[in-house]
Amino acid sequence: MELIGAELVAVDAGYCEIRLPFREDLTQQHGFFHAGVVGTLADNTAGYAGYSLMQENASVLTVEFKLNLLAPGKGEALVAKANVLKSGRTLTVCRCDVYAVSEGQEKLCAAAQVTLIQLENTSDQ
Amino acid sequence: MELIGAELVAVDAGYCEIRLPFREDLTQQHGFFHAGVVGTLADNTAGYAGYSLMQENASVLTVEFKLNLLAPGKGEALVAKANVLKSGRTLTVCRCDVYAVSEGQEKLCAAAQVTLIQLENTSDQ
Amino acid sequence: MELIGAELVAVDAGYCEIRLPFREDLTQQHGFFHAGVVGTLADNTAGYAGYSLMQENASVLTVEFKLNLLAPGKGEALVAKANVLKSGRTLTVCRCDVYAVSEGQEKLCAAAQVTLIQLENTSDQ
Amino acid sequence: MELIGAELVAVDAGYCEIRLPFREDLTQQHGFFHAGVVGTLADNTAGYAGYSLMQENASVLTVEFKLNLLAPGKGEALVAKANVLKSGRTLTVCRCDVYAVSEGQEKLCAAAQVTLIQLENTSDQ
Repeated sequence: MELIGAELVAVDAGYCEIRLPFREDLTQQHGFFHAGVVGTLADNTAGYAGYSLMQENASVLTVEFKLNLLAPGKGEALVAKANVLKSGRTLTVCRCDVYAVSEGQEKLCAAAQVTLIQLENTSDQ
Repeated sequence: MELIGAELVAVDAGYCEIRLPFREDLTQQHGFFHAGVVGTLADNTAGYAGYSLMQENASVLTVEFKLNLLAPGKGEALVAKANVLKSGRTLTVCRCDVYAVSEGQEKLCAAAQVTLIQLENTSDQ
Repeated sequence: MELIGAELVAVDAGYCEIRLPFREDLTQQHGFFHAGVVGTLADNTAGYAGYSLMQENASVLTVEFKLNLLAPGKGEALVAKANVLKSGRTLTVCRCDVYAVSEGQEKLCAAAQVTLIQLENTSDQ
Repeated sequence: MELIGAELVAVDAGYCEIRLPFREDLTQQHGFFHAGVVGTLADNTAGYAGYSLMQENASVLTVEFKLNLLAPGKGEALVAKANVLKSGRTLTVCRCDVYAVSEGQEKLCAAAQVTLIQLENTSDQ
């Protein structure tokens, strides 16, 4: 997330919001945020939302994620907002909405659904 | 793709292969390639595979993509290989396998399914 | 939907709700609604929600759908509620939540994301 | 699967094939197999493929599945063929291709990716 310059806006129990300011090297041929960048942002935001409900000694890995791109990611920033749908002992499922912010107005540009796994007391694999 | 240092290995009708050499800033906390990077690579490789069958004046956009992470993306590089499952007038569907290359050995680390849309003679939106 | 006995509860612009009463032949080995039944219900409910915003002479086809199963589908009925996230000229994207109803209480048991395509004035293919 | 009349064709370690003969009540308005039926078939075939590699005392549940519909499911039968991509201690990931069989010719009509969970020595939840 450092590589792309994302900023944590809010984390709460089962919720996370991350903002990604526009940067030219994150765009594709038309000047919009690249789909891969949108996906990375959605995945990370969902990951933090899920992690917020996990045990202290746990780590979190993404099992799978699915992203629909709804509108061009254009504007001064992207904002991703993720909610936990289900937090289980092993698996956690989140939804994440990504908005393109243009002149302060948020427009939904992508919708993701993400499955996470909690790894307790392990070396993560 | 420039941002992450990806290299086009092969493009054929309905096929594409892209290689991404290891770079520290593409990894997460455990030194593995970040899930977002794996997703970006899969999306791009699928996009090129689909584009290889489209009309000359068309442009391509990702409609949605779904990625399962199967094993840690660790090693000296990632290699993504995408095939077109269906190339329609409007929509194209691809599968993409991502392998982690360690000491020259490829191990499947992610599997994606991607839907693309072909935009003819348009300004892409 | 006749085969499984589903009942349309509500359709509004961009919204649909469908109820599926319990029936023994719709369950798997543990007496819960079968995942395939949950998926069918989610797909149909999303399809109607999307169709509610399409043109009169259009028909609708599912491009792809993705479903997370969150809890056992057990109880006296399933209720699916779908919203349109984006309604485009060609593609429509919906989310659908499926609840298991037990003693009148709704519990989220599945979450879907569905892409639809609108076919105008055509024989559907 | 009894409800829809599916027939197990083959099960091997990490592989399964199931055939579903045409039946009028499984079709939608145009006489093609219903998307929900195609999804149910894909989910079940993937489930058996995954189960073939699990421990004897385990049971299997679908975590999530994603299906792309590629062509109308028309003809005398559907045939689904599923392979295990990864069989882990907890999670198993499968791909499943569904073919529409018309006059003995198989044509790819849907492609699925499915995540399963193995439940050991438990009452399945």
